Amino acid sequence: MGVGTELLLGQIANTNARWISERLAAIGVDVLFHQVVGDNLERVVQVLRAALQRVDVVLVTGGLGPTEDDLTRDAIAVMADVPMVRHPQIEEMLREKFTAFGRDMPQSNLRQADVPVGMRTITPDRGTAPGLVAELPGGKRLYAVPGVPAEMEEMMQGTILPELAVLAGPATIVSRTLRSASLGESRVAEMLTDLFEASNNPSVAYLASTSEVKVRLTAKAEDVERAAALLEPLAEEVQRRLGDAAFTTDDETLEEVVGRLLRASGRRLACAESLTGGSVGARITSVPGASAYFSGSAVVYTAQAKRELLGVSQATLDGPGVVSQACALEMASGVRRLFGVDIGLSLTGAAGPEPHGGAGPGSVWIGLDSDDVSHARVLKVTGERDRVRRWAEQAALDLIRRYLERVPLP
Amino acid sequence: MGVGTELLLGQIANTNARWISERLAAIGVDVLFHQVVGDNLERVVQVLRAALQRVDVVLVTGGLGPTEDDLTRDAIAVMADVPMVRHPQIEEMLREKFTAFGRDMPQSNLRQADVPVGMRTITPDRGTAPGLVAELPGGKRLYAVPGVPAEMEEMMQGTILPELAVLAGPATIVSRTLRSASLGESRVAEMLTDLFEASNNPSVAYLASTSEVKVRLTAKAEDVERAAALLEPLAEEVQRRLGDAAFTTDDETLEEVVGRLLRASGRRLACAESLTGGSVGARITSVPGASAYFSGSAVVYTAQAKRELLGVSQATLDGPGVVSQACALEMASGVRRLFGVDIGLSLTGAAGPEPHGGAGPGSVWIGLDSDDVSHARVLKVTGERDRVRRWAEQAALDLIRRYLERVPLP
Repeated sequence: MGVGTELLLGQIANTNARWISERLAAIGVDVLFHQVVGDNLERVVQVLRAALQRVDVVLVTGGLGPTEDDLTRDAIAVMADVPMVRHPQIEEMLREKFTAFGRDMPQSNLRQADVPVGMRTITPDRGTAPGLVAELPGGKRLYAVPGVPAEMEEMMQGTILPELAVLAGPATIVSRTLRSASLGESRVAEMLTDLFEASNNPSVAYLASTSEVKVRLTAKAEDVERAAALLEPLAEEVQRRLGDAAFTTDDETLEEVVGRLLRASGRRLACAESLTGGSVGARITSVPGASAYFSGSAVVYTAQAKRELLGVSQATLDGPGVVSQACALEMASGVRRLFGVDIGLSLTGAAGPEPHGGAGPGSVWIGLDSDDVSHARVLKVTGERDRVRRWAEQAALDLIRRYLERVPLP
Repeated sequence: MGVGTELLLGQIANTNARWISERLAAIGVDVLFHQVVGDNLERVVQVLRAALQRVDVVLVTGGLGPTEDDLTRDAIAVMADVPMVRHPQIEEMLREKFTAFGRDMPQSNLRQADVPVGMRTITPDRGTAPGLVAELPGGKRLYAVPGVPAEMEEMMQGTILPELAVLAGPATIVSRTLRSASLGESRVAEMLTDLFEASNNPSVAYLASTSEVKVRLTAKAEDVERAAALLEPLAEEVQRRLGDAAFTTDDETLEEVVGRLLRASGRRLACAESLTGGSVGARITSVPGASAYFSGSAVVYTAQAKRELLGVSQATLDGPGVVSQACALEMASGVRRLFGVDIGLSLTGAAGPEPHGGAGPGSVWIGLDSDDVSHARVLKVTGERDRVRRWAEQAALDLIRRYLERVPLP
């Protein structure tokens, strides 16, 4: 449960909910609800009461700061119907923190030393707000931690996750994630739907984002070995059905897979990018150690740069144009020569919203040039500029991946 | 209210909640709660009932797909205690969509033609799932839209936001967002904290992300003119205090500002990127029409590429090394010459986690070369590889921005 009007105004995203849920899933704690409520005492109390009726443990983030707006402490005291008491040792800890920062403590910060009677506190390491732990009637438990992600994470990892792991007992969740960049979500669903329907544990989930579908298999058992034994046969069947469309069975990104394959092959890559403006190189180099297999890119955003840097012929520029098979192939071989590498990869197209080089928005050519293969493919992407660029990146990286894995090229 | 177990498992982030909240704030609708519940009929019904008791309008995302897991339609029918009826015109729309995709419609998709009796539907443009609108006893209203962001956004913009704007009446919220890429959040807070404390309407919020701080001023009044009149004096004061550290007063991205300034100056830019791998060019070209002022980048990820493509001298490579003022300046002038443009911008550094070229992780040099200025600055960034690269991008774009606005260079 998140407390903060800024969340309800959409000014910030509730990233804490996802972070916490992922960690709780990993220790076998079922999360049944997320809630967000604004900085309003009455509503926070109302939501706390309702939450404690329907679950065993409530976890609150936010509203523990020093300002008037921070009223999670007060709401918990009202909900539990206990008074607040000032803890001198917290007061001292606060004063010491401010002294260490070289600043005087504003009087308002003393609020952070107030604790509802009978509740435990969690001492903050990074911030100044202590966390709260309340054991409530009916065996219910409530945790409250700060909303600042680093402060929340510290208390979750240091105190709350270990305590909840004990409560949750020996159940463990093991996941396996396959990803594909070349199949749509509905196609993946079609290929796997009977498995999905037949299996409850492991469960199967599809997670689709722009240009990528993840298939996540999750098994729950008393220990890691048993969970893995449940998972393995289903994971193999999913992998068999997806075939070479799955680029990872281990939740790697496409750029990590390409890096791993390039490294294993001992070959070096360079890119020639037009519509993507450099984002393919940016993704390849997001993987640490990419200099072992990536030399660089020529980002050629004009016809002149394509000709002068990469030697794309005037005949191609005048004839089929910058968005063409010929241009993609000449860019790929040109960048391979320019950087003196083994493989050249090229992208040229119209990202939109305007047509470009005679091609409509969403038309993209991808080229690959190496000593044994010279190949280009066309792609038609519908939608916005960002979406076209993202699909183009994925198609280019997937082309290299397929080439290096020696599976059929699209 | 979001429906989907994948949200509770932390497998995906609930980006819809933020997107919707931001739009509702803009039309003066107060959002009081966010909720997420899993794919469980009983709990969805329970949460729907509770939500309708405490607010006037409930907006549900997710659970309208064709699979067994998608049970928002059923939950709404149970909650309202009405039967479901199949709509032949939706069935026909579904069949036409599948014909247009060139595919047979799976039998399961017919579920999407089921509508609780008496409810309106919203016809989907992108996806196949119709939205639902229910007018309920007590003047309450319920909307249900798909969880896929593009499909949700289409229905929000086409149908739901216009309808709610009518309900919300003449209260309007006007926002103004200033952004800075060169000041930390705590420094911005220090500069503005007295304004924040003194003003309730407009309200002031700081939104910090990696390498950028937004200051958002929000005024609420009966109409746009009155809200703007409330906003203006405070916006001017904030702008005066932030000075040239604010790169926009209009919530533009840094790449949009750079594009606007380059276009106005009639000059062309090229980049030489090392540690960022192409991401500066990718950001510049994310703005439609960037070819009017951007020619391209040389992404030179090896010392050899720096020398061969950009003419960085062997003396520099052997002496101060690839992460140095000399290298940044030679890269900037080299890329300016290579692309024949007015301004060359360069970045070279150690993104980490390993040291690079004798420099520790987080050391970055940024260079700028034009006919009147040749300038380089150094940056020390702490943290992970992604963070170093992101700060480097921001510093490089902010350097160009300052140069074009003729304010002092850092």
